[in-house]
Amino acid sequence: MAQATREMVLIGFLQAQNCSNYVGSWRHPASQSDFLTPDYFRRIGTALEAGKFHLAFFDDRLAMPDILGSDHKAAVEAGVRVVKMDPATIMMVMGLATEKLGLGTTYSTTYYEPFHVARVFSTMDHMLGGRVAWNVVTSLNSSEARNFSQFEHPPHDLRYDKADEFMEVVLGHWDSWADDALIIDKESGRFADGDKVTRLNHEGEYYRSRGPFSVPRTPQGRPVLIQAGQSGRGQRFAAQWGELVFTVSPTLEAGQRNYKSFKDQVAAAGRDPDSIRVAPATYIIVGETQSMAEDKRAVIEAQAKKIDSLALLSEALNFDFGSMPMDQPFTDEQLDNISGLRGILDRVVATTGNAKPTLDDFVTISKRGTIGEFQCFCGSPKQVADHMEEWFVGRACDGFVLAAPFLPGGYEDISRLVVPELQKRGLHQKDYRGKTLRENLSLDRAQVGDWK
Amino acid sequence: MAQATREMVLIGFLQAQNCSNYVGSWRHPASQSDFLTPDYFRRIGTALEAGKFHLAFFDDRLAMPDILGSDHKAAVEAGVRVVKMDPATIMMVMGLATEKLGLGTTYSTTYYEPFHVARVFSTMDHMLGGRVAWNVVTSLNSSEARNFSQFEHPPHDLRYDKADEFMEVVLGHWDSWADDALIIDKESGRFADGDKVTRLNHEGEYYRSRGPFSVPRTPQGRPVLIQAGQSGRGQRFAAQWGELVFTVSPTLEAGQRNYKSFKDQVAAAGRDPDSIRVAPATYIIVGETQSMAEDKRAVIEAQAKKIDSLALLSEALNFDFGSMPMDQPFTDEQLDNISGLRGILDRVVATTGNAKPTLDDFVTISKRGTIGEFQCFCGSPKQVADHMEEWFVGRACDGFVLAAPFLPGGYEDISRLVVPELQKRGLHQKDYRGKTLRENLSLDRAQVGDWK
Repeated sequence: MAQATREMVLIGFLQAQNCSNYVGSWRHPASQSDFLTPDYFRRIGTALEAGKFHLAFFDDRLAMPDILGSDHKAAVEAGVRVVKMDPATIMMVMGLATEKLGLGTTYSTTYYEPFHVARVFSTMDHMLGGRVAWNVVTSLNSSEARNFSQFEHPPHDLRYDKADEFMEVVLGHWDSWADDALIIDKESGRFADGDKVTRLNHEGEYYRSRGPFSVPRTPQGRPVLIQAGQSGRGQRFAAQWGELVFTVSPTLEAGQRNYKSFKDQVAAAGRDPDSIRVAPATYIIVGETQSMAEDKRAVIEAQAKKIDSLALLSEALNFDFGSMPMDQPFTDEQLDNISGLRGILDRVVATTGNAKPTLDDFVTISKRGTIGEFQCFCGSPKQVADHMEEWFVGRACDGFVLAAPFLPGGYEDISRLVVPELQKRGLHQKDYRGKTLRENLSLDRAQVGDWK
Repeated sequence: MAQATREMVLIGFLQAQNCSNYVGSWRHPASQSDFLTPDYFRRIGTALEAGKFHLAFFDDRLAMPDILGSDHKAAVEAGVRVVKMDPATIMMVMGLATEKLGLGTTYSTTYYEPFHVARVFSTMDHMLGGRVAWNVVTSLNSSEARNFSQFEHPPHDLRYDKADEFMEVVLGHWDSWADDALIIDKESGRFADGDKVTRLNHEGEYYRSRGPFSVPRTPQGRPVLIQAGQSGRGQRFAAQWGELVFTVSPTLEAGQRNYKSFKDQVAAAGRDPDSIRVAPATYIIVGETQSMAEDKRAVIEAQAKKIDSLALLSEALNFDFGSMPMDQPFTDEQLDNISGLRGILDRVVATTGNAKPTLDDFVTISKRGTIGEFQCFCGSPKQVADHMEEWFVGRACDGFVLAAPFLPGGYEDISRLVVPELQKRGLHQKDYRGKTLRENLSLDRAQVGDWK
């Protein structure tokens, strides 16, 4: 499906938790605290759909941040993303309260079985009329491993090798029922064409799954695939499987470089680079005037605590940031053992020019736990739209995955103030194009075998 | 919470599928066929809530019936429960469309990890305001094993040993957050009391799961536990863990005998027999008059096909019913190898008095695939209510788990015709007592450690 005009993809970057990506969000005076109720998530969905966002996307981890000091108490006291609910369940709550908004969630290839993941996502795609996406992750750290009957998180590259095979199983199952397999003729008693439902018979190195799969093909053919791998191996995986790809780029120039390099990898993998949408993680703080936005920013930034940063970096890198002095360089062995988000390590090394960074370098460069973690567009609606246009037109991205500095107000601000300005400029859709997520992303309906 | 008057528990026995327990239901002229949409399940939920049912409960299997003739085609053609969606997702659809109805679903202890199951059910219990139940199953057959990277389904008793440990992990995680752990004080920045969130540190024979669990305690303390084990080992498991227990009893006398024997086991396990509700699987076919009900029954029975019976028995017993003549007795070795629902085998042997039954014996005695599989109360509202009262007052049960001969009409008939009669007799609640499922079952809120 060719798109007449290139339009931005807008995505809400959500957590099925007590806070947004920004831990301080729960402490913000205007944030609502009823995150254990469906209303909390319905309100966010309503705000996103009002702004014609393409997708609401839920991140996930399978453990709370408890690597700092090998304990969870400080994180629990400070509310550092310690509540982590099942994101598929939360996504259903939001999906059933909206009509056109796409809904994506993270499920792990390391700790779940492919048959289960395939079935959950097909079921959700049916129940939400073809609006579903799956964010494929290999998970992060030993805390997750220890919740799932394993001693250590598997090494980084092995996780991706397993994930490749996991994808073959999931996509293979999703192809098991032909589009026209269902007959449902009460009189003849023919329910479906037995020749149009096939066993996968997968026998690989890490997985076996025979089938036949038990869910017919979904309204959009199959769920959309999201990927956010930032390391070299992760990017290769994303270039092979991803349809929406989330990135982190600290500057416009870095964004343009990363965008081009990633699209080249997509082409090298034999896929059409224009069919893959790249969206960098971004905060937007918008006010009616620039000074009002800056006042908002000051209130937002005041909610951050040092523990947020240390707990989240320990979680992300699978390394205890309380275990050595902050200014002591990592040893080669320690660096080799970092098995979490190696993309962060790569960025710290590239930015400092220091092959053996210190813990302080990680805090300063990654800015994890603060809104500085991602690029932040702060200003009047026109100023924010200018930044977005510059990135989008300058081919640093195809859209944005927008994290909220507080909830649900952060998204209400965007939908009310920024979106009309983007729409005026012809950069963002005035209404949804269709019913399914693929239609709204101007992607063709997925066909059997088109991923091979 | 003592109940002034003993009242029936009414439960809808549902499938997240293309048919009810009764395969022929999809072929019934009045059944609706849009089972891939949320409306299909919302309609059923509405019908159950109108009749003040306590619970809608979803059964599950992790494979379609493909053991007969080692192939799935005949089952697909005839629609023998070949669509099996993720029941937790479907349950959320029904739960979000209702306000008081309890919602239960089956998740397997054999093919899922306890941390995942604990998190999914806690999340659902929060989002549905404490209305959730988990039906604990160990799964059935090799087709399921082969979808989940295993060659053979583990032996019957080993599955239950693993399941016992699985329960300790799930219930242990559900106890991780004290009732008053959450503080959520924005000014002090204290999110929760670090001393009131604890690691489970489970290291057992089959599972390791450290925690801390990432979901606070739910509105009813924890989800209600359902069990339906029918074999000796299964009943022991149910007596230890179950709060609602589903049974199959062919006659009132058998029901009374099973009821007493099971309640004795509950007492022997050190639990209060009155706190555990026993509900036999039952079909109800009701019409304004007896002859109208009998006409309905004839239409319903005409939808059954022989393939339904053979495919479902092969699935349930993990044995190919096409692999030997129908009148050939099983050998001892074959009988030992039956690893599915051994409760069916026990019933066939007890009823025929034949220790080595034939395939025909299984078809005739179990009546699987027909509405004869469970007891069937057919008649006018008064006649049906008489049967139910007889079972209930005669201590053959504490309520019923009602399967539908067609959908959604089978439940609409019960709610419109039978329920008012039961209410008039004081046998069934006129309205929901409270908000949570435990309140509606007259159970106390679950306390930390009360299951040990």
